[in-house]
Amino acid sequence: MGKSNLDLVSECDNFPYYEDDRNAYTENLNNYHAFKVSGYNCTLGYILNEVVEKFPWSDNCWTIDSAARTVTLVTPPDANPAVRSKLVAEDIAKAVKQDKFEILKGWRNEKYPVYGPGGEFLLEMERAASPLFGIVSYGAHLTGYVHDVTGLKIWVPRRAKNKQTYPSLLDNTVAGGMCTGERPFECIVREAMEEASLPESVVRAATVSRGCVTYSHVRDARAGGETGLIQPEVEYVYDLQLDPGVIPKPGDNEVEEFKLLSIPEVQQALARGEFKPNCANIMIDFFVRHGLLTPENEPDFLQIVARLHRRLEYPTASHCAR
Amino acid sequence: MGKSNLDLVSECDNFPYYEDDRNAYTENLNNYHAFKVSGYNCTLGYILNEVVEKFPWSDNCWTIDSAARTVTLVTPPDANPAVRSKLVAEDIAKAVKQDKFEILKGWRNEKYPVYGPGGEFLLEMERAASPLFGIVSYGAHLTGYVHDVTGLKIWVPRRAKNKQTYPSLLDNTVAGGMCTGERPFECIVREAMEEASLPESVVRAATVSRGCVTYSHVRDARAGGETGLIQPEVEYVYDLQLDPGVIPKPGDNEVEEFKLLSIPEVQQALARGEFKPNCANIMIDFFVRHGLLTPENEPDFLQIVARLHRRLEYPTASHCAR
Repeated sequence: MGKSNLDLVSECDNFPYYEDDRNAYTENLNNYHAFKVSGYNCTLGYILNEVVEKFPWSDNCWTIDSAARTVTLVTPPDANPAVRSKLVAEDIAKAVKQDKFEILKGWRNEKYPVYGPGGEFLLEMERAASPLFGIVSYGAHLTGYVHDVTGLKIWVPRRAKNKQTYPSLLDNTVAGGMCTGERPFECIVREAMEEASLPESVVRAATVSRGCVTYSHVRDARAGGETGLIQPEVEYVYDLQLDPGVIPKPGDNEVEEFKLLSIPEVQQALARGEFKPNCANIMIDFFVRHGLLTPENEPDFLQIVARLHRRLEYPTASHCAR
Repeated sequence: MGKSNLDLVSECDNFPYYEDDRNAYTENLNNYHAFKVSGYNCTLGYILNEVVEKFPWSDNCWTIDSAARTVTLVTPPDANPAVRSKLVAEDIAKAVKQDKFEILKGWRNEKYPVYGPGGEFLLEMERAASPLFGIVSYGAHLTGYVHDVTGLKIWVPRRAKNKQTYPSLLDNTVAGGMCTGERPFECIVREAMEEASLPESVVRAATVSRGCVTYSHVRDARAGGETGLIQPEVEYVYDLQLDPGVIPKPGDNEVEEFKLLSIPEVQQALARGEFKPNCANIMIDFFVRHGLLTPENEPDFLQIVARLHRRLEYPTASHCAR
């Protein structure tokens, strides 16, 4: 049998929906504290209660309200992103020193941004710590495909055996997380060179923006580190039709190999659970956009399309360059 | 200035979201009764309280619970769709006879289906009555476009002056509601001939399924009839690239004329509010899918993409032919 497309989408977008079961939704939220920043009336992420208990919060800048279940970074009204980021970084460094969290062993030395209402940049934090705070993270994924006489084929990489997260699983042609200040298209250009050795000129000329996939993921053992952490994500989606002569090659040690797979081969690998969960979502979105999954051949079409585009319950970024 | 793309999407998808304001969401729901069918533990639509008061509910088949705010069609456990549909049709006929609702003057003589959990077909009702019950309706929209030396252009029809709903507004190349038993692709083939005189062979050969747009609309005066009625809708989305020599022509009295508009012309007409609200959504989805709206040029990109794909809080159909 294998996994259905809805099974795959549901594995990635696995944080409960209010409308499915109002009581279960509220009960589940009781396992978390809302992450807030003083001066902003919004929830920026959800922190697992066990993380709240273990994290070395400094008394001088955090207020924890156990009744309201909130953790608030309290700073003077004139605090700027640099001030907030420094306070958060100091406590994350303490947590690393005290060896508090498994997930912090996957230190990336990359900074992920946190946005408030209207897309205002509030602070940044080490990427590895972002699931502890449950903040929205941003990435960009590109599907490189070829149209030849035998039909449509997709360039699919296999992740390296020694990757910290999801080792040996299948991935999208090019994919990467966006650090503070990076824009989605530039992220794709950079990652296409780093991960797939695709020439910048090819990528800039022929890559087309196709929307985004959004979901709210609760991490399980496959992600490595603590489980139950919430990871809401935005993945900007791009297509790149490649000439049959252009062959992606691993450019760093993150990818083991690239294979050009037919659509049935990709579908079988999906059903066997061989793709990294969020990459399965991007692939299914590709199938929907290219007319391969249709209302007439996919019984769960409506559920799938809606859950590929979850409206996140947090403020999100604007990456607009205007 | 004109309307932004997010303004347009928000005008169509204007039923509140729980996560934006939990109290306001719940308060708003107090204006409605949930429409239910005995034997099924789900809400099939929301009926405005004023409609509940005015509608001529027959005592023998309806239970109204004012405390729980539910209206339930009560039938024997062995009732089938034909039995349920007949009971509903009889009371709708009474409402027409007693001239209870403005909206029923737009009688269509078309039947819209209602689905329960797992996409089970429960009953059908006259299309014009569907907003009174707030049930999910299904349609299919096709964007016909041309690639010529001057770029991408879209075939845009203007609705006839005497259309009951949204007269004289701009529309999508081909669009239609799906009656009971009809599948999306066949709906497009039929409407393409009826509304745009596009030959069946052209439509069947080159039309590509591209996903769907979903939203929950609260009707205002422009829709005609009672306001405040909820209309959750699924619109299956198709693209059709046409040869420059193929010219759509009005095939019935629903369309006044077709014009081939450039992308800036379409964008200006959108900003002026000249498109029928849900057709603006389909056009914006087209722009996202074709790389015309990107994260770098649209400040509200993430909100827009999520709200074009609302997860409806009701059971929905499967139009799968397998």
